[in-house]
Amino acid sequence: MAEPLTVNLGERSYPIVFGGSLTGAIRQAADVLLARGARVAVVVDESVAKAHAAMLDAAFGTAPRLSVPSGEGSKSVPALARVLDFLAEARLDRSSGVFAVGGGVVGDLGGFAAATYLRGVDYYQIPTTLLSMVDSSVGGKTGINIPAGKNLVGAFHQPKGVFIATDLLATLPPREFAAGMAEVIKYGLLGDAALFDQLETQPLTVGDAGLAAVIRRCCALKARIVEADERETAKEGGRALLNLGHTFGHAIENVAGYGAYLHGEAVGVGLAAAARLSQKLGYLTPADVARVERVVAAHALPVRLRSPLPLVDLQAAMSRDKKVRAGGLRFVVLKRLGEAMTQGDVPAELAAASFRAVGAA
Amino acid sequence: MAEPLTVNLGERSYPIVFGGSLTGAIRQAADVLLARGARVAVVVDESVAKAHAAMLDAAFGTAPRLSVPSGEGSKSVPALARVLDFLAEARLDRSSGVFAVGGGVVGDLGGFAAATYLRGVDYYQIPTTLLSMVDSSVGGKTGINIPAGKNLVGAFHQPKGVFIATDLLATLPPREFAAGMAEVIKYGLLGDAALFDQLETQPLTVGDAGLAAVIRRCCALKARIVEADERETAKEGGRALLNLGHTFGHAIENVAGYGAYLHGEAVGVGLAAAARLSQKLGYLTPADVARVERVVAAHALPVRLRSPLPLVDLQAAMSRDKKVRAGGLRFVVLKRLGEAMTQGDVPAELAAASFRAVGAA
Repeated sequence: MAEPLTVNLGERSYPIVFGGSLTGAIRQAADVLLARGARVAVVVDESVAKAHAAMLDAAFGTAPRLSVPSGEGSKSVPALARVLDFLAEARLDRSSGVFAVGGGVVGDLGGFAAATYLRGVDYYQIPTTLLSMVDSSVGGKTGINIPAGKNLVGAFHQPKGVFIATDLLATLPPREFAAGMAEVIKYGLLGDAALFDQLETQPLTVGDAGLAAVIRRCCALKARIVEADERETAKEGGRALLNLGHTFGHAIENVAGYGAYLHGEAVGVGLAAAARLSQKLGYLTPADVARVERVVAAHALPVRLRSPLPLVDLQAAMSRDKKVRAGGLRFVVLKRLGEAMTQGDVPAELAAASFRAVGAA
Repeated sequence: MAEPLTVNLGERSYPIVFGGSLTGAIRQAADVLLARGARVAVVVDESVAKAHAAMLDAAFGTAPRLSVPSGEGSKSVPALARVLDFLAEARLDRSSGVFAVGGGVVGDLGGFAAATYLRGVDYYQIPTTLLSMVDSSVGGKTGINIPAGKNLVGAFHQPKGVFIATDLLATLPPREFAAGMAEVIKYGLLGDAALFDQLETQPLTVGDAGLAAVIRRCCALKARIVEADERETAKEGGRALLNLGHTFGHAIENVAGYGAYLHGEAVGVGLAAAARLSQKLGYLTPADVARVERVVAAHALPVRLRSPLPLVDLQAAMSRDKKVRAGGLRFVVLKRLGEAMTQGDVPAELAAASFRAVGAA
């Protein structure tokens, strides 16, 4: 089984533990808190609560538990207020711990509630989707949406520990697993050529014995990047590299209407577009681009828009993205397969041509 | 005029500027932001907005401004949501600044919104009450109330600068000025014997030429304490010392019903009770206690309950206070006038006798 990984952030360092079932380890972490007189509260996605009731009972016993409706709607001010009221009803004090069990929504919501309840209590993450395992386990970003936009409100709040139990993925819909694979492929492309090669040789599946090891590699890569740029303040590179494929992807989600594409599906198309842009800038060969597309497609993800979206709308959506506007037009591009960099002053026509290459009209 | 004061918290250090009118300095701070292309937004108490419209226009020009209803009701989740929506509508980005103009409510609300909008933007405080000038200018505590209790949700978020313009106190109701004086007296008692002596010789009034200098001394004392214990984690002393008189005071507010006593009025009685307790523990003489009562009373504050409150209710309220429960019964007491310390394992009957001495039945 994959070894634990430490995310090194000084006094905010924490371990990520990997396993098939980690119920015993989670129980132990909760028991450590209870033994020192602290309280434990659990915030859990309602679908996960149904699918994994026995695991939750075994791990948390009678600790207070709040089920949160599945879906992005729970990353809202009213949902936050409900979680905060729940933590108060559970009489958590400063020494207590919050366990967030679910995908990115529950991690972001539960983490933000833990960041602000009593000005900050400990929290532990138990991600239940491939996307949240490789993406939300490292970085400390927590938050909610407001009517003006997604993730506009939140806090940097590092967890005290993360438990990645791959058995939980057994109940994940295949489309969600594929969406998570978009991020796995992204990690290979931006910083781990050997991982990309491995995915090319043998597409990863939910039953794969090497799944935990792959997730660990993604977490380790993100940890290296976050350790060097915890608050996303680096002028070049840094956490921005994690946006590979996401500038295009966000524009697609925005124009297609949220929900039309899963985030990972939009990122799949976005990775293809980023590869095209990297080719137009002279970094990648056409053969490299073809490899990217093959690996993305081999994981049941789109490499082209399912139906054409207006280029003018996609461009408008991108130009509203501050990360893009800063420095002319700013993109994360591939210097080669396995190495990304940020590049400013990208000619608008190259970005447009890359979008057209993946199906924009 | 009093010199600026620096609160030394490493990379979170910031200046507090003192003056009669600081409109020019505030304008300059806003202009610095605007000159570098950042945006400025103002959150202001609605009573202050009416009383000081000309100052606000001169300082902030056409910068977006949100008026917040006066009173504790604005430290709520719905009010927070309104401020966050306002910051988004004002299109603040990460380089922007929020100015909070008002008393503790607006400072806590505006500061918490600034702490969480885009996971943290800069904010500047312009306190308009004596209480917020001496209390909220230093410490970085921001937050709101939830139904389960006051200040249960928030963040530590240090301001980038604080402007203490004593001219703004001219429109403050005398009862509010007196309430602020309870905290000023508290600072003298807990760490500045010369300040206490000065208040004894000549009670401080709103028109006093030395007012800014006294406020500065209070801020400097709080800064020394906060610098040594930023997150309130010290086992002994530390930020807890700032609770002198507040353990009794909070119980009084709670049992009398919030609003029956202004916070500062309850603290006035609380200081008298803390002095009694310190005498019963053998630290103060009866003459010391009489001096404390005389100084509190000379500033138009009560030293006894206006009408008796049930001792059993006051004790129950105190025992719900975790800071009290930790370490048997834990209180901030006076070793002498001008020096406070935390003391655990205070016999319950001494606390009860102290409460009876200030009018509990």
